Amino acid sequence: MASSPVHCDLDFSRPGRQHGHLYLPFSYNMAGWANLMVPITVLNGERGGPTALALAGNHGDEYPGQVALLRLSRELKLEEVRGRLILVPCLSMHASKAMTRLSPVDGKNFNRCFPGRPDGSPSEVLAHYLSSVLFPLADIVIDIHTGGRSLDFVPCAHMHLVPDLQQRERMRAGTEAWNSELAFLYADIAGSGLLPVEAENQGKTVITTEMGGGEAVPASVHRLTQSGLRNVLRHFGVLDGRPATRRELGIKPVRWVQALDREDYRFAPESGIYENLVDLGAEVSAGEPVGQIHFIERPDREPVPVVAASAGVLIGARSPSVVIQGDCVACIAHDVTW
Amino acid sequence: MASSPVHCDLDFSRPGRQHGHLYLPFSYNMAGWANLMVPITVLNGERGGPTALALAGNHGDEYPGQVALLRLSRELKLEEVRGRLILVPCLSMHASKAMTRLSPVDGKNFNRCFPGRPDGSPSEVLAHYLSSVLFPLADIVIDIHTGGRSLDFVPCAHMHLVPDLQQRERMRAGTEAWNSELAFLYADIAGSGLLPVEAENQGKTVITTEMGGGEAVPASVHRLTQSGLRNVLRHFGVLDGRPATRRELGIKPVRWVQALDREDYRFAPESGIYENLVDLGAEVSAGEPVGQIHFIERPDREPVPVVAASAGVLIGARSPSVVIQGDCVACIAHDVTW
Amino acid sequence: MASSPVHCDLDFSRPGRQHGHLYLPFSYNMAGWANLMVPITVLNGERGGPTALALAGNHGDEYPGQVALLRLSRELKLEEVRGRLILVPCLSMHASKAMTRLSPVDGKNFNRCFPGRPDGSPSEVLAHYLSSVLFPLADIVIDIHTGGRSLDFVPCAHMHLVPDLQQRERMRAGTEAWNSELAFLYADIAGSGLLPVEAENQGKTVITTEMGGGEAVPASVHRLTQSGLRNVLRHFGVLDGRPATRRELGIKPVRWVQALDREDYRFAPESGIYENLVDLGAEVSAGEPVGQIHFIERPDREPVPVVAASAGVLIGARSPSVVIQGDCVACIAHDVTW
Amino acid sequence: MASSPVHCDLDFSRPGRQHGHLYLPFSYNMAGWANLMVPITVLNGERGGPTALALAGNHGDEYPGQVALLRLSRELKLEEVRGRLILVPCLSMHASKAMTRLSPVDGKNFNRCFPGRPDGSPSEVLAHYLSSVLFPLADIVIDIHTGGRSLDFVPCAHMHLVPDLQQRERMRAGTEAWNSELAFLYADIAGSGLLPVEAENQGKTVITTEMGGGEAVPASVHRLTQSGLRNVLRHFGVLDGRPATRRELGIKPVRWVQALDREDYRFAPESGIYENLVDLGAEVSAGEPVGQIHFIERPDREPVPVVAASAGVLIGARSPSVVIQGDCVACIAHDVTW
Amino acid sequence: MASSPVHCDLDFSRPGRQHGHLYLPFSYNMAGWANLMVPITVLNGERGGPTALALAGNHGDEYPGQVALLRLSRELKLEEVRGRLILVPCLSMHASKAMTRLSPVDGKNFNRCFPGRPDGSPSEVLAHYLSSVLFPLADIVIDIHTGGRSLDFVPCAHMHLVPDLQQRERMRAGTEAWNSELAFLYADIAGSGLLPVEAENQGKTVITTEMGGGEAVPASVHRLTQSGLRNVLRHFGVLDGRPATRRELGIKPVRWVQALDREDYRFAPESGIYENLVDLGAEVSAGEPVGQIHFIERPDREPVPVVAASAGVLIGARSPSVVIQGDCVACIAHDVTW
Amino acid sequence: MASSPVHCDLDFSRPGRQHGHLYLPFSYNMAGWANLMVPITVLNGERGGPTALALAGNHGDEYPGQVALLRLSRELKLEEVRGRLILVPCLSMHASKAMTRLSPVDGKNFNRCFPGRPDGSPSEVLAHYLSSVLFPLADIVIDIHTGGRSLDFVPCAHMHLVPDLQQRERMRAGTEAWNSELAFLYADIAGSGLLPVEAENQGKTVITTEMGGGEAVPASVHRLTQSGLRNVLRHFGVLDGRPATRRELGIKPVRWVQALDREDYRFAPESGIYENLVDLGAEVSAGEPVGQIHFIERPDREPVPVVAASAGVLIGARSPSVVIQGDCVACIAHDVTW
Repeated sequence: MASSPVHCDLDFSRPGRQHGHLYLPFSYNMAGWANLMVPITVLNGERGGPTALALAGNHGDEYPGQVALLRLSRELKLEEVRGRLILVPCLSMHASKAMTRLSPVDGKNFNRCFPGRPDGSPSEVLAHYLSSVLFPLADIVIDIHTGGRSLDFVPCAHMHLVPDLQQRERMRAGTEAWNSELAFLYADIAGSGLLPVEAENQGKTVITTEMGGGEAVPASVHRLTQSGLRNVLRHFGVLDGRPATRRELGIKPVRWVQALDREDYRFAPESGIYENLVDLGAEVSAGEPVGQIHFIERPDREPVPVVAASAGVLIGARSPSVVIQGDCVACIAHDVTW
Repeated sequence: MASSPVHCDLDFSRPGRQHGHLYLPFSYNMAGWANLMVPITVLNGERGGPTALALAGNHGDEYPGQVALLRLSRELKLEEVRGRLILVPCLSMHASKAMTRLSPVDGKNFNRCFPGRPDGSPSEVLAHYLSSVLFPLADIVIDIHTGGRSLDFVPCAHMHLVPDLQQRERMRAGTEAWNSELAFLYADIAGSGLLPVEAENQGKTVITTEMGGGEAVPASVHRLTQSGLRNVLRHFGVLDGRPATRRELGIKPVRWVQALDREDYRFAPESGIYENLVDLGAEVSAGEPVGQIHFIERPDREPVPVVAASAGVLIGARSPSVVIQGDCVACIAHDVTW
Repeated sequence: MASSPVHCDLDFSRPGRQHGHLYLPFSYNMAGWANLMVPITVLNGERGGPTALALAGNHGDEYPGQVALLRLSRELKLEEVRGRLILVPCLSMHASKAMTRLSPVDGKNFNRCFPGRPDGSPSEVLAHYLSSVLFPLADIVIDIHTGGRSLDFVPCAHMHLVPDLQQRERMRAGTEAWNSELAFLYADIAGSGLLPVEAENQGKTVITTEMGGGEAVPASVHRLTQSGLRNVLRHFGVLDGRPATRRELGIKPVRWVQALDREDYRFAPESGIYENLVDLGAEVSAGEPVGQIHFIERPDREPVPVVAASAGVLIGARSPSVVIQGDCVACIAHDVTW
Repeated sequence: MASSPVHCDLDFSRPGRQHGHLYLPFSYNMAGWANLMVPITVLNGERGGPTALALAGNHGDEYPGQVALLRLSRELKLEEVRGRLILVPCLSMHASKAMTRLSPVDGKNFNRCFPGRPDGSPSEVLAHYLSSVLFPLADIVIDIHTGGRSLDFVPCAHMHLVPDLQQRERMRAGTEAWNSELAFLYADIAGSGLLPVEAENQGKTVITTEMGGGEAVPASVHRLTQSGLRNVLRHFGVLDGRPATRRELGIKPVRWVQALDREDYRFAPESGIYENLVDLGAEVSAGEPVGQIHFIERPDREPVPVVAASAGVLIGARSPSVVIQGDCVACIAHDVTW
Repeated sequence: MASSPVHCDLDFSRPGRQHGHLYLPFSYNMAGWANLMVPITVLNGERGGPTALALAGNHGDEYPGQVALLRLSRELKLEEVRGRLILVPCLSMHASKAMTRLSPVDGKNFNRCFPGRPDGSPSEVLAHYLSSVLFPLADIVIDIHTGGRSLDFVPCAHMHLVPDLQQRERMRAGTEAWNSELAFLYADIAGSGLLPVEAENQGKTVITTEMGGGEAVPASVHRLTQSGLRNVLRHFGVLDGRPATRRELGIKPVRWVQALDREDYRFAPESGIYENLVDLGAEVSAGEPVGQIHFIERPDREPVPVVAASAGVLIGARSPSVVIQGDCVACIAHDVTW
Repeated sequence: MASSPVHCDLDFSRPGRQHGHLYLPFSYNMAGWANLMVPITVLNGERGGPTALALAGNHGDEYPGQVALLRLSRELKLEEVRGRLILVPCLSMHASKAMTRLSPVDGKNFNRCFPGRPDGSPSEVLAHYLSSVLFPLADIVIDIHTGGRSLDFVPCAHMHLVPDLQQRERMRAGTEAWNSELAFLYADIAGSGLLPVEAENQGKTVITTEMGGGEAVPASVHRLTQSGLRNVLRHFGVLDGRPATRRELGIKPVRWVQALDREDYRFAPESGIYENLVDLGAEVSAGEPVGQIHFIERPDREPVPVVAASAGVLIGARSPSVVIQGDCVACIAHDVTW
């Protein structure tokens, strides 16, 4: 793979805390010779712990992780750090500023750009830098997502079923250490080029999340994102201190669920105004309507129902009321035992 | 006042259910001789009850009321109606379709257009039609709002303190009949031209709400909107049946709060990424930070806090994480006794 | 009325041909001290004939008149002109360039801006200049329209029924002199501020047209526009020569029709894809479907028909297939005798 | 070739009529986990006839075929179908809704995307699905075009001169069965990746059309599209019944024309306002002006003519009056004998 | 005049330095209850000097004044201030952020909004606040302009010829105190509603400038803006210290020029690419070409010249090369003696 | 490499002057069968001199070269031409019209598209045509740049250090023949696909420039562009006549400078309003602030300085005052001796 044009003004091997930036060469109408600057912070404890790479803003409209990493990069005391912590609070800077999922610069879904290309568009160049420079530095890769603006999610940590059983077990334990009520096993039914898959392929212990969704971020979701992240870092020995157990926190034992079947995802059969009929996190039975679509031009027209294909828990639900045909309006997950 | 150019294809005095439209003459680039069509339904029970005019979509990005009225217009049985019910499920059709607060046609905030003008822009013409034709037909005017995309709200019914004490008392009782946990007394600190003020000035019993906010509409908010609306209509005798009491529904006695002081509304002191620090509906003390603003380009920069000016309950909170200087990020209300 | 800020670099009293411009002071982001320049040509024959003011581009997306006046301003020999001819080939320059009906500068429908204001937006300033300077110079005012991009029209000259019977008779005769197959009597059901109404109120003989419509302009429509205009100018003695009679041209006697009733205009009952079922210019019977609306997301859904309210001739039909609820899709006219 | 990520909810082998959709996985800012849904209908007569695949909406702004297939999918009685008919009424859903030629999703010209890629943009993924799944199911492929918004066309069926003489003869006969007055032999002077070429390369009998053009669709063009399509399907035995002959319909024998030379296509030499000087379908001589370009800012400037390079029939003409340098303004075809 | 809805969080009578904001109530799609916040700083020396109100960002794309006031508000030592200094560094916040002359919020030219309206659009509300609250507090009003993005200007202070001779003399002396090489006497040929005119009508001593123009701001222009402003404030006794004389600074005696005739402003006769032929600040003779317009589509076409109507100094010249018909491309001024 | 789809209507071997166009097949929403037409002029003297290919408008917002080539193509007398001169005054037509650096058609930076692709987007197709057809015809390739809208530059000719010493020496001499005060040696620190690199790789003598920058183009810059270009053409014997020496023109001996180090380019550390502190062309010392960033929302916040990494001459400076994090704000060059 060709070398990356990205310049980083940090020295990852230097002890202590450094705030810096990645510089991606970039040309646009308002600046011919510009760099897309991506903030990065490293905290190097040099006490023998592993290296964790924590990422947020993979999709621009997912803010809890961005806030958690911005806070962690300033608030963490250096003496709390055993190993090394590399924090990239906002991978998709332009998308975050524009409140969009996709990059307004190149139109790309950053989470479909891996392993990236050193001569591609900005999203592809950054993906390549992660794949070729940052992932190799890390033992643990944490990528903090939410459902974004369009999909409200029960806040949960989640993971893939990777084939390597030792890697899988490390990931399962780390996922549970987030201490969310649900833990979610997901599959990429359609789509390739995901950031976590590239990190998994490199053998990393990968921890991912859906920290709620929709535009509103309640304080409780910020708290879970920030406490879960710290607990995972303690679990892996990147930070000092014993990780908190669910029992200590007064949370029920984790409930593992999965949505691996195409039918678990329900799509709007027609454009209109969607009404959620089931509360997020509630149980649904097979054939039960989870929502219905109304037609504002025609109050006399019957709404079109969307029904659950099988029983389960409503783990994700459409956030905006306006839907276009084909938008995902519901995700129904099923209990799973390891 | 000159007569309205709006044409209505319904006969309000005819018994039974009629679905129809208001036609506002309108010219745009894709149709020179067009009408902006606004759906309207009338259910006329002719059994001696009062007339209620129920409105939604005053702001386009507020959907619970739109859904409630669409459902009511179809699902209500004619024999349930004692008096007359006039339903306009979506006042701002273009804004609702575009998911915006303001009209994309004329850029107007519909709730600042009253009493309207017969020769103005579409929003002004429709406001004038309401003021001059629909309000005079009604005894009760119900205008269902939410906080819209930008502001998450504790779902509540609310009202102004109108000077006429009998009118005020009718409104207080009707507001409580919505059976929301909080009831909210609000003042228009800055702004004129509101729909409810025009209706109040005409002596109507006006019932308004903030049925949550943010883009996501949980099923529970749809339920409260739909049940509250029906209960208010029963309370006033528009619909048959005894209104449900809070006790029957297992809800605590209503808590009346108010936010009448400029300082109760907190604004973003600078543009950035806003983190809510207090849960919606929680109590805050004077001087407590309710949120803080982060700076994504500069992880090393300290966040700027937003603090409560006085103790109260956080009744409204910023929904999108990105804020621009001056955006309202918090509304803090205080207990009030009648 | 205050004086106009518009500057004209022509001298209307000077004999001969002058090409010049109107200058409207105007500020926009790419030029702080700019003028909106509107081309104008005067041909002054000084042989005792009347003054005709011929206008086009009232709506930007109506080109046959713009082309006819551009050609006339260059091709007319000065010796053909008895009286005086003032030509404004494009009233709405920005709209013409942008291919839009409304002005992209101020969002106005120029044909709803009369009598205008000297301190208003550019469309209002130009309307005021016409009302206060150009109309008083003229005996005959010709305003060449088409149906624009959105409405395909049987090419015809048309007129209002003005109350002054002598003025009405002059207009009837001038309208017939255009030698279109149909002549159309129209009323402004909803709308005020029209250019021809202001000119009529000033006692002018006003001649207007719908020279086809839709984006495509066949060569035959250009020919009718150009020959009709010259014939009308001959009819009034502005140009030399005997006007051509219909008999000489081999055209049937004129057929006068009118569409004065609201029901003569049919609007799309719902957004979708519109299919014209009747040929433009064909006869329709009462209750006959003139078109139907299809739903591309739902091939299984029955199309919604649009039916004629009464029998007549289909004089105007929707041009673009995509329709939004409320767009005019058909205009049905009825025979009338003087 | 890798397998397609497209999911189809129809069973092509099941007898009877099924309305369904193709689901293309797709992510955009308003829905992270969405599908672009493309409607598809299959009518399976199971009486031994061949399979025809009929397509429309290849370019979004070409509606006659979309309407014809929507109608056919509902109106055809199952007992009329001998073989199998697969109908995709709108290949470019977003473009059709946006009234554009190119896809607003990925900016692609769908008719330059073949054979497509399973990992490309939505247009490429759909092209690949057609190439790899739908074409192999079909004996006859029908792709219904018009000139789109920009080019008005004499309604005609057309075809390529494929090298296989038997395939060519099947296509010639099918093309004539559309019963348009002209039949058009065309070549792809510049451009590759066309849908019909891929289908031809797979040995299919390919029938294509230019069913008029410009935004306006007269009822007569809808009739020709719908009757021509049915007649072609009868011709090939997909539908029951004897195909109508031209003689029965009172149409002259078919006139075959071709425009295979670069000089047959005339381009605007400069931006301005284009005036068609020749009626569509009329004969032109070599050197004759077919149009001229006017300059609205400068009425004094002579128009720039566009002349025919050689004699022929004007088969296509510019629809919008505004032209940009390089736009095609005329297509001149020449008689050809087989 | 009704009272302003604008809230100011400063106390103008309190001694010392205060940084604060004006709050204009404002509703937009991303924040229903927002304030447009306009920064304001007051430095109150309380030593008997007059009050100066210094303003910048009247047009958003004019930055030297914005920078000068931002610096002055921080860098000025309180002990330097004799009287009172009220600084509003950016009147048009949205326009400044968007790099535009006009407000992107309401499309207004702020310098045509005076005296403003308390119930108008944001620009009108702010204009009204200045007219009714800030101007009455001030003895001297300074409004720092440049030519903006579109017009490059010889940096100069300028003024109107106000009718009151004492006021005029105070303004002349203040204008000269800016120590620019040229001083410019200008008239508002077309346009009303200017900020300085409203302040002049209230009897204020008004000092205005054109501190260069075009997008680029050389360091030398920033220096002249900052030094000129301080010198004017010393001249009027707002700041301590003797004002610098031109002799001390090594500058030639001031040259007063004027451009009061319509013909002094030259406009693009046609759209194209403009080539400046005369250096800014150079002398031109009557009939001399100051520039010419080229046509990129047609290299063979002769350029169209723009000539000076009379001899003078080229004080302003078009900055962007692309011009639209009617854009101002040159301003030619003439020597004047007092 | 596959053959180009570009058609050229000129015959490069024919003697004399020809104005023509390149035709790139191109499809867009307003013209399905269009060509992107690129003007080209050839002057063939046929007197044994070399062939020079002179190009401008590589970036659309760089106009001095476009104007110079438009003028040269018309003003040059054929008898002045010894060899052959091929002029392409505007490579990026859509960008030039839109006043943008990048192509609004495909979003590409044309100067990163080489060697191009015959089946790519319009920018890539044109790059391929240059690489495969025009470069092989030329001995000398001249590509006239400026800093564009975003970067103001000391007008200078510049070049790469190509490895072939003879080619390098020809380029050095040619660069000096432009007679700019500075001559600039530059390296492509990050970026590939440049037009001059492709021409250099083909062994051509390549001459490039930065003829100032920012939107404003003073007459002096047009003069230097036009005189420098003619002098270079005389230097190489393409035009008749002895090239002017610096001594004759009264210019100091050339000063060669270079900026080959990443640190020579300074980027905005944060978004805000940038103030240039050093005049373009002035000397700076190491550690000296060249500019600072202000924050318009927060006048109380200290500006963030941008400092020179090493001593040198400020050869390029930010033109627009608004900067986004990562924009280049300063380029500092260092003396070099050959």
